[in-house]
Amino acid sequence: MNTATLLVSCGDRTGIVAALSDFVFRHGGNIIDADQHSEDSGHFFMRLRFETSDFALDWEGIQMALAVLARGFDMQWQLYGPSRPRVALFCSKGLHCVYDLLMRQQMNELAGDIVAVVSNHENAREACEHFGLPFHHIPVGIDKGAAEAQQRALLSELNIDLVVLARYMQVLSPAFVDEWSGRAINIHHSFLPAFAGAKPYHQAKQRGVKVIGATAHYVTADLDQGPIIDQDVIRVTHRDEVSDLVRKGRDIERQVLAHAVTLHLQRRVLVHANRTIVFH
Amino acid sequence: MNTATLLVSCGDRTGIVAALSDFVFRHGGNIIDADQHSEDSGHFFMRLRFETSDFALDWEGIQMALAVLARGFDMQWQLYGPSRPRVALFCSKGLHCVYDLLMRQQMNELAGDIVAVVSNHENAREACEHFGLPFHHIPVGIDKGAAEAQQRALLSELNIDLVVLARYMQVLSPAFVDEWSGRAINIHHSFLPAFAGAKPYHQAKQRGVKVIGATAHYVTADLDQGPIIDQDVIRVTHRDEVSDLVRKGRDIERQVLAHAVTLHLQRRVLVHANRTIVFH
Amino acid sequence: MNTATLLVSCGDRTGIVAALSDFVFRHGGNIIDADQHSEDSGHFFMRLRFETSDFALDWEGIQMALAVLARGFDMQWQLYGPSRPRVALFCSKGLHCVYDLLMRQQMNELAGDIVAVVSNHENAREACEHFGLPFHHIPVGIDKGAAEAQQRALLSELNIDLVVLARYMQVLSPAFVDEWSGRAINIHHSFLPAFAGAKPYHQAKQRGVKVIGATAHYVTADLDQGPIIDQDVIRVTHRDEVSDLVRKGRDIERQVLAHAVTLHLQRRVLVHANRTIVFH
Amino acid sequence: MNTATLLVSCGDRTGIVAALSDFVFRHGGNIIDADQHSEDSGHFFMRLRFETSDFALDWEGIQMALAVLARGFDMQWQLYGPSRPRVALFCSKGLHCVYDLLMRQQMNELAGDIVAVVSNHENAREACEHFGLPFHHIPVGIDKGAAEAQQRALLSELNIDLVVLARYMQVLSPAFVDEWSGRAINIHHSFLPAFAGAKPYHQAKQRGVKVIGATAHYVTADLDQGPIIDQDVIRVTHRDEVSDLVRKGRDIERQVLAHAVTLHLQRRVLVHANRTIVFH
Repeated sequence: MNTATLLVSCGDRTGIVAALSDFVFRHGGNIIDADQHSEDSGHFFMRLRFETSDFALDWEGIQMALAVLARGFDMQWQLYGPSRPRVALFCSKGLHCVYDLLMRQQMNELAGDIVAVVSNHENAREACEHFGLPFHHIPVGIDKGAAEAQQRALLSELNIDLVVLARYMQVLSPAFVDEWSGRAINIHHSFLPAFAGAKPYHQAKQRGVKVIGATAHYVTADLDQGPIIDQDVIRVTHRDEVSDLVRKGRDIERQVLAHAVTLHLQRRVLVHANRTIVFH
Repeated sequence: MNTATLLVSCGDRTGIVAALSDFVFRHGGNIIDADQHSEDSGHFFMRLRFETSDFALDWEGIQMALAVLARGFDMQWQLYGPSRPRVALFCSKGLHCVYDLLMRQQMNELAGDIVAVVSNHENAREACEHFGLPFHHIPVGIDKGAAEAQQRALLSELNIDLVVLARYMQVLSPAFVDEWSGRAINIHHSFLPAFAGAKPYHQAKQRGVKVIGATAHYVTADLDQGPIIDQDVIRVTHRDEVSDLVRKGRDIERQVLAHAVTLHLQRRVLVHANRTIVFH
Repeated sequence: MNTATLLVSCGDRTGIVAALSDFVFRHGGNIIDADQHSEDSGHFFMRLRFETSDFALDWEGIQMALAVLARGFDMQWQLYGPSRPRVALFCSKGLHCVYDLLMRQQMNELAGDIVAVVSNHENAREACEHFGLPFHHIPVGIDKGAAEAQQRALLSELNIDLVVLARYMQVLSPAFVDEWSGRAINIHHSFLPAFAGAKPYHQAKQRGVKVIGATAHYVTADLDQGPIIDQDVIRVTHRDEVSDLVRKGRDIERQVLAHAVTLHLQRRVLVHANRTIVFH
Repeated sequence: MNTATLLVSCGDRTGIVAALSDFVFRHGGNIIDADQHSEDSGHFFMRLRFETSDFALDWEGIQMALAVLARGFDMQWQLYGPSRPRVALFCSKGLHCVYDLLMRQQMNELAGDIVAVVSNHENAREACEHFGLPFHHIPVGIDKGAAEAQQRALLSELNIDLVVLARYMQVLSPAFVDEWSGRAINIHHSFLPAFAGAKPYHQAKQRGVKVIGATAHYVTADLDQGPIIDQDVIRVTHRDEVSDLVRKGRDIERQVLAHAVTLHLQRRVLVHANRTIVFH
């Protein structure tokens, strides 16, 4: 089954849904999924997934026609075909998120393909070999720029669509972040905005909270301030020392990250005003 | 703002979304909410909420036009206007669900109006007086038929749209259940299908489960077998005696029931093949 | 059954559990509940509940003997008899927490007695009348000191053991807070430390979080910084406007507050280093 | 630090806690953890963890002394030293639980050592090689007895303390189950007692539940009827087809199984009357 997914965003007015669904229908497509959201602020968002097997237009034709339609509604739009997004994982020494995502790939859970793992340490090499995946060791020294240049070249060469920072412990430059805006997901080990920055589990122990959490968000230049895609929490008690929080946190980190990556790969996420609209 | 909510259900084929959204657009309506679901089995469901202030047709006209449209697609449909559904609560001695729903009414949380409380006991009378609501004491003796006749007359007289069994401890006759099919919600104090029938918390203690739950479902002639609208659970431990399960259960019962009632009143629930489609 | 509950806290060393349980046993008591916690930091905490019906010492004797024992271990201790704590609720206009606690009192869920409701507004008067509870209207004007003097006199006159700020929207003076240290519980409508201060649901909407929460904590002079007793969260989506967050938050606020109050009334909470130890 | 963990179970009477803690204290031990539970039915349970570095008795001496003490109270007891339990995993084709447990072993999360993986299929061989663990392929044909004889010989040879059925799809004989009573944990992919038996996710889809779950329990001769150690649930919607339930279920299965195995390895679980007491 050939399908296309269309994400649109524009000021709200009458007739948008009708225009979009009529567009699909008139060209012989069949809508499989339609979900819409209108904000009280007067902004309109929609996700439309439709079958294109019998479409009267080829892919370029669809894009041309959509460009015309979008012009009329002053609409921002993204159209995705059936090709699977290509993903690169960045990690450091801790591998729980990497293992989790590679396992999910092995079980065909993901709507995209992890094609590379990049790390400033060697720890993930064997896991990559086991799962049959190329591992790229790019050390990060004092000259961070050199490492980033290597990373960017690699991402470009591999035609990467999504970068997942799966507990990558290095801060990326504003230029890198800017280039990958809306296409790089980080997992932070706290329920943001609580405990942003370093050592969130130590902060959590210090404050004596009764829940800890994890937050997956798009990377922005402001650390831990990007649009939140998903977050979740787990209960803790006074018995939990920092090492217990770290252990319990790993479970929630890998789940939240996997969920956010899945949502992104299924083209379910739109960003607006530093917040996400997540279509279910 | 005048709005209408349309729920439709039919065999899937191309053009349904286009036809419905075009119908709204052509008559000057604006779609506020559109949510659709296609089952792998080939069945199509949709919920459409649209503004009707500038609609070119009056209410009867809308219904006539929809009837024509539906005929073409062999579609089942329900159309709801802006008038608020009228709700009757049935209860017995335990009042936690009744209090909860009346409090929510007082805080304007509900998309309908609770207009009567019916009980086979006197316990709820004072709460009704406090919340300014008529209380109807209909004792249920050996001749259950007599009580049911009274109940049905009352529901008819009050133009009730939804009956909520808020821990009502009497079994209703098949005739009653049939008449109120899809319009009567019960709360069962277990996560069905586990522990159907009597004394679920005793059953739960006996089995040694680590979670207990509650299930809100439409009432059917088969006890505790109706379509599930919502359910949720809460963790318990070996320390919890039956009385603790009852106490903890009350919290989850009232939340699940309130959530299910809210979903129904907002016209978000469709029943198909003894299951619910719940539009969010 | 006459029971006593003993909470102790001291530096860890061998023999504490033995000394305490031997003390109970030697005087003819029976331990019903024993729970202990040793921090990695070397601090020891214990909760001991024991039957005193056949105790060889009267209440004053128990206290004298414990004082001796505690001296040997340099131990802080609190001993509670079977008498039920007396509780005052403070509230303002929003009544969901007050209703919830009064309902729980009516259903005998609480291990203490709510004996008064104090408010700077009139809204709770009718609810108090319905539940058969004295309502005290103490307006708070520009001279906050006058209101506080009235409040403190009332609490003293009524022999209150615990003050519950059930969405009380006034800041209490440091002197008041100090007097009620460890005996005043507040509910804050966010998962602290996120969104401390005013309008947390607006802050949450602004930040685009995917969970909101509530935190019950002991009141301290630093606003929203006191020791956390309990907290919990609920999932939200981009569809939830601030008013939806407020509504969803009410459910979690009343549950978290009720849970924290229950834990306190059952003498399950110890405070140490601005954190709580909660014995289950 | 050398520690011992003692689990006891007996009829309740005064002096048990005192006798046990005095026993530890008199011999120079230090209690690190003490947790006790008395059932309304009059049964007493306790878990006591204490340091034995300076104990006045050697291991055999401790056992002799405990035997005497236990005789006086008609007490059942289990004493565990610091040696780590040895674990064997049984699996079939699905590997998510196996991967999860091996990853946790690699991250030092477990209080025991997985020393072998046994399977009736070849699928897990490579994962075992990657994690440096012996893999034992024992096919199960028509003569199940032959396979079981091999399994039992292997478990005996490897000095296995705990068998974990990590989605092992074969039914074990009553004799096997009996031999490993209280030492074999299974994960069932539903929240028991709902959906016992085959294809629980199909059953769940059919019934239209809004939560699915997983249950870890000790294996008994009655399929899916053993004492429950842990269970948990995850929300689902009408959109989830059976394949989605399977995928979502995997996450909850591996978490619940890992949690139950951890509780068992930390000697936190006692079985009584087909229910578990789980000390936290």
